[in-house]
Amino acid sequence: MSEPPFSSIGIVGLGLIGGSIALGVRQRWPSTRVFGVDADSVLAHALGDDAIERGFSNIGALPDVDLLILAAPVGQNISLLRDIRLMPGTPGDKKMVVTDVGGTKRAIVDAARALPSGVAFVGGHPLGGGERGGFAFARPDLFAGRPWIFTPAGDAGTPAVARLSEFVSGLGARAAVLTPADHDRLMAFVSHLPQLAASALMDTVGGAAKNDGLRMAGRGLADTTRLASSPVDVWRDICLTNADAIGDALDRLIQRLTQLREGLDSGDALDSIFTSAAKWRAELIKERD
Amino acid sequence: MSEPPFSSIGIVGLGLIGGSIALGVRQRWPSTRVFGVDADSVLAHALGDDAIERGFSNIGALPDVDLLILAAPVGQNISLLRDIRLMPGTPGDKKMVVTDVGGTKRAIVDAARALPSGVAFVGGHPLGGGERGGFAFARPDLFAGRPWIFTPAGDAGTPAVARLSEFVSGLGARAAVLTPADHDRLMAFVSHLPQLAASALMDTVGGAAKNDGLRMAGRGLADTTRLASSPVDVWRDICLTNADAIGDALDRLIQRLTQLREGLDSGDALDSIFTSAAKWRAELIKERD
Repeated sequence: MSEPPFSSIGIVGLGLIGGSIALGVRQRWPSTRVFGVDADSVLAHALGDDAIERGFSNIGALPDVDLLILAAPVGQNISLLRDIRLMPGTPGDKKMVVTDVGGTKRAIVDAARALPSGVAFVGGHPLGGGERGGFAFARPDLFAGRPWIFTPAGDAGTPAVARLSEFVSGLGARAAVLTPADHDRLMAFVSHLPQLAASALMDTVGGAAKNDGLRMAGRGLADTTRLASSPVDVWRDICLTNADAIGDALDRLIQRLTQLREGLDSGDALDSIFTSAAKWRAELIKERD
Repeated sequence: MSEPPFSSIGIVGLGLIGGSIALGVRQRWPSTRVFGVDADSVLAHALGDDAIERGFSNIGALPDVDLLILAAPVGQNISLLRDIRLMPGTPGDKKMVVTDVGGTKRAIVDAARALPSGVAFVGGHPLGGGERGGFAFARPDLFAGRPWIFTPAGDAGTPAVARLSEFVSGLGARAAVLTPADHDRLMAFVSHLPQLAASALMDTVGGAAKNDGLRMAGRGLADTTRLASSPVDVWRDICLTNADAIGDALDRLIQRLTQLREGLDSGDALDSIFTSAAKWRAELIKERD
């Protein structure tokens, strides 16, 4: 087994993503020390499953680590950046890599410019995800075969990006690099829009069909609305920090739906949208195989 | 094993639904004779898999049957009703149950009023479905645990409804009865709207992200757009025969998406839509367990 890219890791937030990182590290690099920061009940669960070596209630109490991972919702991660100065050691002397796992990147990359100079911040975004959040659903293979995007503020060739790429590759992910702006714009379409569409659809259908009607639904509705159980606190932050790009994506979806609506009697819009959608769907599936 | 509800069945259209009915009948009631109507290549496949006893190129060539199932797209099923007069025997003397499996019911139930008096037509709609259509994906358990809605034109207590309910229960489905109008309105929300939303979403996302961007997508996009590979010919007919109800459903979805779009900076619409959607999603999943 190769040398671990990091010998000690602090993970702030042991939900589905943070918990899965902890479990993955313990499995891949047993010699790496893993510390967690979360509420007591979550820490107890994570300690019980041997996902972490020790738990703490705040970043300031963490021991010195090589890598700090912020795995709370986006807004909290941005606030947590300020707490890094409270960690042991002199901030200016600190040599530490910091990353996050949030769904938007421009806001946190901007905020991270205020970090002490020794701290190398690289925004990160694993495209894992699962139907349900929380440590209870964490698993070491959550990232297997899935993209993990890094968004360095400047030079993508820095040692921190290389170490982080090696790290996530060890967890089974496919490391990629985008600018924060390119990331946010792309995610508005491939991640944020599907989430908003799924929630809007489930709300619309449930409100009209009610419980009796939902009992008559086929598998299609269940698949199309799987994302509708996502936690709102995560998504509120994502919308607030990517409102411009998500607004553009929503406009385009609304435009397509309006075309379908106006063409119901003729079928013209239906033909072109279905044909194009089936072509993109085939590409999407091909990319995932 | 109980007496089969029908001793001979003709199935017009051996795609995913028609083919699965044929396979299910052969498994459940081996003594029931099953005849198919489709193109030669499909018939060869169905005969090779022992799904049917004999195949024919048109309804007029079918032998006398107890039950005729129209399993083509909605528009074709409506046209096929006229061909029933071409079947052997005097139309007025014919005692036969006819049903269909199309996704809308008002149009075909109206058209079926012109059938000879001995023919008992009851509209039907199995909520099975699958990612891909065609006989190649047919399977005898496609309907297991899924609803199968009947929409009699008048009295729901007729012998034909009872026999059909027994028939689909034998295939593992849960028989239900709705009026054609109630069916079409409900399906506009629980079936037709998810399909149109999935296709519009996949077209929007693919057009913006292109192949390189789709490679960065998580599992959420793939789930939300599973329906986007559905065949357009089936859906063109559904939209044409349920345009009023689907238009209303699309209007409501567009309204929700517009609320989300206008509230991106505040999060208010997001909170209420996500909370309501998660509640309905929990109900949907509960109903399916």
